[in-house]
Amino acid sequence: MNKVCVLGAGSTNYGKLKEDIIEIALTASVEAIKSAGISPKDIGAGYISNVFGIADKQVHMAPVIMSNLGISHVPGLTIESACGSGSVMFREAYANVAAGFYDCVLAVGVEKVTHTGTAQSTTLFSYCSDFFYEGGNGASFPGLFASIARYYMTKYKADEEDLAYVAVKNHDNGLLNPKAHMRKRITIQDVINSPVVASPLKLLDCCPFSDGASAVILCNEEFAKKSNRPYIEVIGSGRGGSPASVQGREDISTIPSTVIAAKQAYKMAGITPEDVDFAEVHDCFTIAEIIDVEDLGFFPKGKAAKEIREGATSRKGRIPINPSGGLKSKGHPIGATGIGQVAEVYDQLTGKAGERTINDAKIALTHNFGATGASAAVHLFKKVE
Amino acid sequence: MNKVCVLGAGSTNYGKLKEDIIEIALTASVEAIKSAGISPKDIGAGYISNVFGIADKQVHMAPVIMSNLGISHVPGLTIESACGSGSVMFREAYANVAAGFYDCVLAVGVEKVTHTGTAQSTTLFSYCSDFFYEGGNGASFPGLFASIARYYMTKYKADEEDLAYVAVKNHDNGLLNPKAHMRKRITIQDVINSPVVASPLKLLDCCPFSDGASAVILCNEEFAKKSNRPYIEVIGSGRGGSPASVQGREDISTIPSTVIAAKQAYKMAGITPEDVDFAEVHDCFTIAEIIDVEDLGFFPKGKAAKEIREGATSRKGRIPINPSGGLKSKGHPIGATGIGQVAEVYDQLTGKAGERTINDAKIALTHNFGATGASAAVHLFKKVE
Repeated sequence: MNKVCVLGAGSTNYGKLKEDIIEIALTASVEAIKSAGISPKDIGAGYISNVFGIADKQVHMAPVIMSNLGISHVPGLTIESACGSGSVMFREAYANVAAGFYDCVLAVGVEKVTHTGTAQSTTLFSYCSDFFYEGGNGASFPGLFASIARYYMTKYKADEEDLAYVAVKNHDNGLLNPKAHMRKRITIQDVINSPVVASPLKLLDCCPFSDGASAVILCNEEFAKKSNRPYIEVIGSGRGGSPASVQGREDISTIPSTVIAAKQAYKMAGITPEDVDFAEVHDCFTIAEIIDVEDLGFFPKGKAAKEIREGATSRKGRIPINPSGGLKSKGHPIGATGIGQVAEVYDQLTGKAGERTINDAKIALTHNFGATGASAAVHLFKKVE
Repeated sequence: MNKVCVLGAGSTNYGKLKEDIIEIALTASVEAIKSAGISPKDIGAGYISNVFGIADKQVHMAPVIMSNLGISHVPGLTIESACGSGSVMFREAYANVAAGFYDCVLAVGVEKVTHTGTAQSTTLFSYCSDFFYEGGNGASFPGLFASIARYYMTKYKADEEDLAYVAVKNHDNGLLNPKAHMRKRITIQDVINSPVVASPLKLLDCCPFSDGASAVILCNEEFAKKSNRPYIEVIGSGRGGSPASVQGREDISTIPSTVIAAKQAYKMAGITPEDVDFAEVHDCFTIAEIIDVEDLGFFPKGKAAKEIREGATSRKGRIPINPSGGLKSKGHPIGATGIGQVAEVYDQLTGKAGERTINDAKIALTHNFGATGASAAVHLFKKVE
């Protein structure tokens, strides 16, 4: 297996975007290509992640993106795994470079849904659930995560303020991210007082619907070294699954796919959670981040809420979580999110994260899941010095 | 790299199906698992290909399929590359087994669109074109392939009867395939007299909209040998791209992605087109098959129409094409088609193809493309004796 590196990254702003989905994808792709100091001709394959291209009347995006980059002969494909599409796509791109099928590939995630409106976006997203048991019976994601939150809060005696701390911390981080969707400082009281979406989740417990794209360049170590550009190394990769519907799970205060994926990734990297300097995790709802950081091994089960409250996951805490602002503040263009996390890690570990830089970070983790965690992928990255 | 084998295959009937998309996918998956003589627990990952799950309100299918197979922990993903999704997905499954990431994987392609009606299906399919230049300006696929047909016919002095010979031959083959969508013998005059869809293409020059699923089990050679079951070996794999829009191509009597993918696959296998005993190719419209068999190197450019007329591609001809009936008669559930081709090759080379068996076949080729050939993949398989 070849060592696999991330040599460049690019992102559009996340938010409500006017451009069409291909223009959005191209903006991020071109930025990643420039960041890597390569030419499109160096790209051996294009990996796209997207869920609802249909909402902007374009599926089969790879040939359109490749053609617009002037490399129409280069094969591409689209990978979908709901809100976890980006990380699952990153894993395939990683696997192909690791195996030597390509020296250098473009991985670009993109989504455009805000023009359909909140009601239609919620309907579309419900198709990512186990529709027979969930979406088809009116259980949309806020409702499903509300069930999860209620169960967790009861089991571990957490409260609505605990959830709010996640939102406040991620909004603080997002303020330092010029590309974030929701750049607005909020207080615990703002969260508590915001409209109830699905009790106990209020509006400010939920990430926004976002448009946007993120792209990274993956390559083997030889290619990266020759570039004389800063790069980072992928040291761990894991994927897992959970029972598709929430009702099918034994204990909904944990997400099985995260636990499986993390175990694989740590094992491959030969490290433990203590070795990780910061992480970008899947905080589609505040409760998700609390469960994530426990499932990833950063805190014992049931203990994260208190630790978050005391600042352990803040930028200067023991294990900073979502320095980018996370899905909550940076935004959640679902096909792009997993790649956006890798772009943040690249920026952080190559000195491009500006004011939100995590000091002395050397090892970082990304965690991204689909739906209520029916699918998940975890990746580990190392600074190259 | 590990040798990769196909150990089992299954398909639903292709046609108008009443079951939901998950039931359809499960029927083919369970048949493939039984055919391989394995247990779901042997499966390390699930590869799904699908384009319009949204039409049946279910995307993020992998966790739902895995959960219904009783292996919810197993990671999966969906790959989309328009009508070429199945073969592109097969390539990713192949690459992961070849690289040693998994010993055994399930690859299942599925589509359900007929319930949306012909008009809505045509609209959905147009999103697979370069929508900015094509679909968005009213150019749906029958129109685009009509342009290609008109150009080819003018350049190589072919006529509408030449196109009809492809349809008649594939319907003859489909009569012997109990799972084919259109099991009806037709004559040259039936094709010529059928309603014009987009001149020179008539209704019987076009493949149908179909529902259906096909699945195969891929594994490494050691796993296959241990099974004591019949299996075939993947000996070549190639992928390519073309300018996404037809207007962006220099010569529309050839499909660049096919030429690139075929060259890679032949090179990897160390064989030439003359070594291939039969092929399943992408005949979404009759003109496509004529162009395919030239681009794949079975006939010189401009010569295929005459050869087809003289029987060279019939079941007992020099190079039998689409013994399954092809997209034209077997049907075209777009996410499943590429895997259905592999299932046909598995059946043919392991003695399960009944009356439509190609005698003494040892090496077979599959060719499947997306849209007007903006993406394509070619695979080569060898009988194991």
